[in-house]
Amino acid sequence: MSDMEQFKAEMERRTKEIEQIIEPYLPEETGHQKTVLEAMNYSMKAGGKRLRPMLMQEVCRLFTGDVLDCVIPFMAAVEMIHTSSLVHDDLPCMDDDRLRRGKPSTWAEYGEDIGVLTGDALMMYAFETAARAFETSIDPDEISAIGRAIGILAHKTGAFGMIGGQTVDVELAGSDIPRDKLDFIYRLKTGALLEASMLIGAVLGGAAEEDCKIVERLASHIGMAFQIQDDILDVTGSEEELGKPAGSDARNGKTTYVTLEGLEKAKKDVEQLSAQAIEDLEQLPGNNEFLENLIRMLMDRKK
Amino acid sequence: MSDMEQFKAEMERRTKEIEQIIEPYLPEETGHQKTVLEAMNYSMKAGGKRLRPMLMQEVCRLFTGDVLDCVIPFMAAVEMIHTSSLVHDDLPCMDDDRLRRGKPSTWAEYGEDIGVLTGDALMMYAFETAARAFETSIDPDEISAIGRAIGILAHKTGAFGMIGGQTVDVELAGSDIPRDKLDFIYRLKTGALLEASMLIGAVLGGAAEEDCKIVERLASHIGMAFQIQDDILDVTGSEEELGKPAGSDARNGKTTYVTLEGLEKAKKDVEQLSAQAIEDLEQLPGNNEFLENLIRMLMDRKK
Repeated sequence: MSDMEQFKAEMERRTKEIEQIIEPYLPEETGHQKTVLEAMNYSMKAGGKRLRPMLMQEVCRLFTGDVLDCVIPFMAAVEMIHTSSLVHDDLPCMDDDRLRRGKPSTWAEYGEDIGVLTGDALMMYAFETAARAFETSIDPDEISAIGRAIGILAHKTGAFGMIGGQTVDVELAGSDIPRDKLDFIYRLKTGALLEASMLIGAVLGGAAEEDCKIVERLASHIGMAFQIQDDILDVTGSEEELGKPAGSDARNGKTTYVTLEGLEKAKKDVEQLSAQAIEDLEQLPGNNEFLENLIRMLMDRKK
Repeated sequence: MSDMEQFKAEMERRTKEIEQIIEPYLPEETGHQKTVLEAMNYSMKAGGKRLRPMLMQEVCRLFTGDVLDCVIPFMAAVEMIHTSSLVHDDLPCMDDDRLRRGKPSTWAEYGEDIGVLTGDALMMYAFETAARAFETSIDPDEISAIGRAIGILAHKTGAFGMIGGQTVDVELAGSDIPRDKLDFIYRLKTGALLEASMLIGAVLGGAAEEDCKIVERLASHIGMAFQIQDDILDVTGSEEELGKPAGSDARNGKTTYVTLEGLEKAKKDVEQLSAQAIEDLEQLPGNNEFLENLIRMLMDRKK
């Protein structure tokens, strides 16, 4: 196996491990409101790389060498928020997607009204789950850090984070988007939740303030590079590799980083952002081998 | 002025006071995502009695004689959650209401996609706001109580609270609803957020566990009585009093407490639930005069 193949196998193992960690935090499908609980679990179990909890876990490990108990509920919470955003993104009044990872999207399976409420329920459950972290500790410093982490989660996912980015995205859909607004959308819609994931890992891991700043910047570079790479793949990828039709951005007349800056500059910028991320990573304590490989893998991905 | 007129004037004064308390917690309308921030404030400023923060404040006063600093952000948060539920309830795929308190509902004013995202943003902002309570204290007991309050807020508003009730409500709309499911809907859809409001006031006010239980039960009685009174007014009220067409439940073939139990029993049950609530209230410490009047007013209301 090549190094990259070996790392991909390691990633798959970690994705499964994280799914096992999150599983006990999913709601029991019981009571009169069984439908919404089923729909929450249906959307949570639809797959994905579990990248956000994986990053959170790894950043915490940098600072503590281990994953603290208080981090586990936040790993589940961040995945719930991510899933809630996919559930609402797929709604008819948003992207109108009937399929998600080859299966009916949540609203297509359960109806549009339940689709709205399932996204809502996942958001609330994310905070309920995160608040369970308070049960893991009686140490005042750790309790303070958990409080701060909840604030970060809410801030980076709300109107000044993920949802803010989505709003500008839907507002400008179909129009020519200038570079500053495209950056804003990418930074918030995709970047903010990655920043929350990594920053929470650092805060709960007891990182010093200057290290928290490095982690946040690093996450922001990863988010931006990840999004530009998506735009590149839509142009260069094949339908077979992507698992979805390639060239859909161009067909939909969508402004992307590639339409604004051209393919060559886009590729160069992904490389530069990744290099900056790895440079930042090397300033942090701990064993950063997995995170470095993860950054390289995300930039070299074919889908 | 009669006692009831005097109390109504007092209520109006308190509603204004609470709006002034909440105002500084509303987001500044700035940045590329200005639209969603405007829509959040548009929906938050649409009016209403501000009953939930009012109840929270009053319950805290029972136990401390004053309103603690850490309660203020939660008062804003609970009103944001309440507003988010109205914003999503009005969506075309839910109740399809173009009007709310005589003005265009949020989706009618800003579009359906922004309507979904505004509700989402208000939910996240509620938790961001609640988490600001951590900045008000360095006392470990108070910090623990704030953590517990965030857990209560999330639990009572999610799939096991408000959203759970809404799900069953939309699932059973148009069908004959048996009494146990109607109770479930009322207890969760309306009751749970009232319970959260009052229970958080008690927890942050440092109430003993047995008093927290009484407060939760009391809130649950108020919620149920409030909802049954709504059903009664739909039958007995005039369009002029209600500010909306009366008799809409019957026209829509909706199962209500009145269609299941008859008008007389419904009235009797409201009285009994109110009496139980007042009995519970009298077991609690502090000056309960305002809360007692509030319960009587809610049951005697004409709209």
